[in-house]
Amino acid sequence: MEKIIISTNGNNEIIDITPKVKEIVEKSNLEEGICLISCPGSTCGITTMEYEEGLIEDLKKTLDKIAPVSSDYLHCQKWGDCNGYAHIRSAIIPPFLAVPIENGSLALGTWQQVVFIDFDNRPRKREIYVTLIKSISSKKNND
Amino acid sequence: MEKIIISTNGNNEIIDITPKVKEIVEKSNLEEGICLISCPGSTCGITTMEYEEGLIEDLKKTLDKIAPVSSDYLHCQKWGDCNGYAHIRSAIIPPFLAVPIENGSLALGTWQQVVFIDFDNRPRKREIYVTLIKSISSKKNND
Amino acid sequence: MEKIIISTNGNNEIIDITPKVKEIVEKSNLEEGICLISCPGSTCGITTMEYEEGLIEDLKKTLDKIAPVSSDYLHCQKWGDCNGYAHIRSAIIPPFLAVPIENGSLALGTWQQVVFIDFDNRPRKREIYVTLIKSISSKKNND
Repeated sequence: MEKIIISTNGNNEIIDITPKVKEIVEKSNLEEGICLISCPGSTCGITTMEYEEGLIEDLKKTLDKIAPVSSDYLHCQKWGDCNGYAHIRSAIIPPFLAVPIENGSLALGTWQQVVFIDFDNRPRKREIYVTLIKSISSKKNND
Repeated sequence: MEKIIISTNGNNEIIDITPKVKEIVEKSNLEEGICLISCPGSTCGITTMEYEEGLIEDLKKTLDKIAPVSSDYLHCQKWGDCNGYAHIRSAIIPPFLAVPIENGSLALGTWQQVVFIDFDNRPRKREIYVTLIKSISSKKNND
Repeated sequence: MEKIIISTNGNNEIIDITPKVKEIVEKSNLEEGICLISCPGSTCGITTMEYEEGLIEDLKKTLDKIAPVSSDYLHCQKWGDCNGYAHIRSAIIPPFLAVPIENGSLALGTWQQVVFIDFDNRPRKREIYVTLIKSISSKKNND
């Protein structure tokens, strides 16, 4: 398993991690299989999107509608921990994404990037895990 | 990796792709493992549901609440590309779904189908990828 | 493939299944790989969250906003089956979650549990499937 370390600003920052994931996949010599991209944290998410300034803001607005940034969560009232919205967003967009590998590279669309979203209400250092799996028809691999 | 080619009407059409995925799984002779169903595109989603006329409309209504079909997205204002809603829906319901294989077949419920949703605002030709992985306890496979 | 049998109260009960999944992973002797946790059902979901009384209620409230518990769904009007909300929630939070395995254990955060959510409108008996996959760099395993 390989790891990517990133520093985030929290507060729903959306970060394009595609280049770093691609590098790991290409170094592995795995020809065909699955790449699981994940993070051990309950206030973040991993998904795909066209990484474009307009859409980044559009997605933030939609998330604000689904689970508003506010202290009106029991998590805050009980524990004084006012990132309840971040936990809820992470349950809806969890930090676990499996992407296929084809011809030794991530099988993504041209306008599709793998993004890490740090929902937490403060800057964080995050470890992203990249786990590689060989498919049954893969011919070339380093296993 | 196997591929399924479909033509969609776009506009949030929900298509049952279970029969085609099942066919690939059954032909593979993989007894136990994982089937990753995915699409390289940022305006579509893959999930499971009971594929029933009523629920199909109910799901569309819910998606209309979460991310309305409108031109009120920065993606549209910046690029004139007015499928912003489609991108946002795809970030929430991404086109990557891993389903287990048991006894050589997809382990789904009786009332559970794998569906492809084309959120885009126009008809599309889509390639759906099916990647098969053997589990550690699988006895029979073609690897 | 291993199975976990649980009895739920339905009605959006959120159940921490981490201890049972961990037990299966640890017994397998799989050092590094992926664990797919799933359920063959279209009225349930599997995700991760901090399993804490406040957040459990907070998540239920958010789900009530996204897809309210009501009979105002075509699924109910057509079939008299008034768990339409449960189906919709399951399409948004599907019962398929892939978590990496590192050093023989689930790679989760300290405050991150794997939860099963039974959206259905009645108590259910549920079978949860745990499928284990070896990664390409895993050295120790029972395959």
